[in-house]
Amino acid sequence: MDSNFEEKKVLITGGLGFIGSNLAIRLAKLGAKITLVDSLIPTYGGNLFNIDPIKDRVRINISDVRDPHSFKYLISGQDYLFNLAGQTSHVDSMENPETDLAINTLAQLQILEACRHYNPDVRIVFASTRQVYGRPLSIPVNEDHPLAPVDLNGVHKLAAEQYHQLFNNIYGIRSVILRLTNTYGPRMRVVDARQTFLGIWIRRVLEGKPILIFGDGEQIRDYNYIDDVVDALLLAANADLCCGEVLNLGSNEAFSLTETANVFKKLVPEGEIEYVPFPQNRLVIDIGDYRADYSRIKARLGWEPKINFEEGLSRTLAYYRENQNKYWESS
Amino acid sequence: MDSNFEEKKVLITGGLGFIGSNLAIRLAKLGAKITLVDSLIPTYGGNLFNIDPIKDRVRINISDVRDPHSFKYLISGQDYLFNLAGQTSHVDSMENPETDLAINTLAQLQILEACRHYNPDVRIVFASTRQVYGRPLSIPVNEDHPLAPVDLNGVHKLAAEQYHQLFNNIYGIRSVILRLTNTYGPRMRVVDARQTFLGIWIRRVLEGKPILIFGDGEQIRDYNYIDDVVDALLLAANADLCCGEVLNLGSNEAFSLTETANVFKKLVPEGEIEYVPFPQNRLVIDIGDYRADYSRIKARLGWEPKINFEEGLSRTLAYYRENQNKYWESS
Repeated sequence: MDSNFEEKKVLITGGLGFIGSNLAIRLAKLGAKITLVDSLIPTYGGNLFNIDPIKDRVRINISDVRDPHSFKYLISGQDYLFNLAGQTSHVDSMENPETDLAINTLAQLQILEACRHYNPDVRIVFASTRQVYGRPLSIPVNEDHPLAPVDLNGVHKLAAEQYHQLFNNIYGIRSVILRLTNTYGPRMRVVDARQTFLGIWIRRVLEGKPILIFGDGEQIRDYNYIDDVVDALLLAANADLCCGEVLNLGSNEAFSLTETANVFKKLVPEGEIEYVPFPQNRLVIDIGDYRADYSRIKARLGWEPKINFEEGLSRTLAYYRENQNKYWESS
Repeated sequence: MDSNFEEKKVLITGGLGFIGSNLAIRLAKLGAKITLVDSLIPTYGGNLFNIDPIKDRVRINISDVRDPHSFKYLISGQDYLFNLAGQTSHVDSMENPETDLAINTLAQLQILEACRHYNPDVRIVFASTRQVYGRPLSIPVNEDHPLAPVDLNGVHKLAAEQYHQLFNNIYGIRSVILRLTNTYGPRMRVVDARQTFLGIWIRRVLEGKPILIFGDGEQIRDYNYIDDVVDALLLAANADLCCGEVLNLGSNEAFSLTETANVFKKLVPEGEIEYVPFPQNRLVIDIGDYRADYSRIKARLGWEPKINFEEGLSRTLAYYRENQNKYWESS
């Protein structure tokens, strides 16, 4: 796997964000020639400090995926496109629906049209989300589960998945789609509760504030440590037999929110937990319990997560203890 | 059913088009106060002659559903919204993807946002399409069939369906979604093969030109006569127990393309049939055989089609024999 990227030209949208920056750091070790595209929209997670370890080895292009003209130039000559840019907040998608549509759907169509016209040989990995399933009918959820998103973010990401499949099937633009679950680790956005509760829990526990659990704490979630997700992205980029397909990521562990908070307490014994009512704007789009069935990607690509939650969370807390001044405020 | 619409204010998007105009003519008989919104985009099917029988009894508002500002005013005070406007050509959706997205997805989001802010009590019926299923895994296709559209039109209509469901479930904007199959009848666009092969077959057979069948003629299709579709729209508009749901329309008959052409020949004995290769731009987005399972709407609303294909086609041919000068060219 590793040698595939040596001297290869790689474009990462959302490249200064959580997943994009960790991927870039790995790809830099593998000898890739990396261009990072990021708009640095303050609340979205892009952060120049994220790529501090490789800042002299990558090209940074500050631009927005909603700008189709710059993308035509940027995509030309690239061997790989890791298409990670997105608006990821479910609540924000309900408050600013047209923005979510523009970034998560329209821009994706324009990116694929640019690939078709200017670089049809590029290989694409698209980062989607378990949100496309909506409320699971049962767990674990495999890729054949009905697609019934319960918020606009899910609708828009699903359309973008289908774009990638269509462009693969009709125009031969090779794409593999990964449906991510809760990803966590160093370089995630921890400013507030916009994107993921794990981020704000990390921040609060390190600030000596109680972790806030919405509801009764019984809700089930699964978590992937960032390094495992980077493994999956790299494997998918060369998965010839998976082009046009959708693959779930997931974990062999699942936790209720209370159990999740207890892992935090184990690592930060002075941490406190507080149960609060589900905010109404989250309750109406809540998906209930979720756990992915990731047996398809395991069978097809041999991927499985290697870092358990306690270990991953321990590494993550260590990172933010050291670098919190770079992450407590929006970049 | 009929008395529900007396003196009720009804807005129809795509109101000068095929389905919208037939619906308006029926609603006028039922005593509704009707506003028709249509952009009269030349190739889309809107035609002022379509509403000739009721032209003094309806209000016509020429505007585009992509204009969110006019819609805020238009939706205010309406009791019902029949949301029929759309770009319906599958081939056009591949050639002009952003236009299809703007009309079939973005405009729908704006319409629903306008309903939420300016008329949350309106009742909506949304006309969707069997295209959201993609290539059927088996026929007949019921509403639980996987959603895997094979063209951009299908992706965009699916997103719009999901918008209607979300706004129903989250904001209580009552919507029922109908998935239409091939609808035919008086007032359909017959200028060319853009939207439906039945339209251009009607025109060609009346012009003494051969009907062109793409491929071997074995492909299966089902057809609904417009009056049956109007019945379904009216039933759905007051279907309290179906809000947020999706219901297939369909037929108790299904035909191969060759069988379909033979019905034409029975009605127009001098008609000729010619088999031609599938054009490449259609082949790549073709869905293969399709036939709907409409048992859900039959069980829930008692709807079933009443006009068989031979009878419906006979009425349709009679209409175009009489009015062809109004339909041979784009309006």
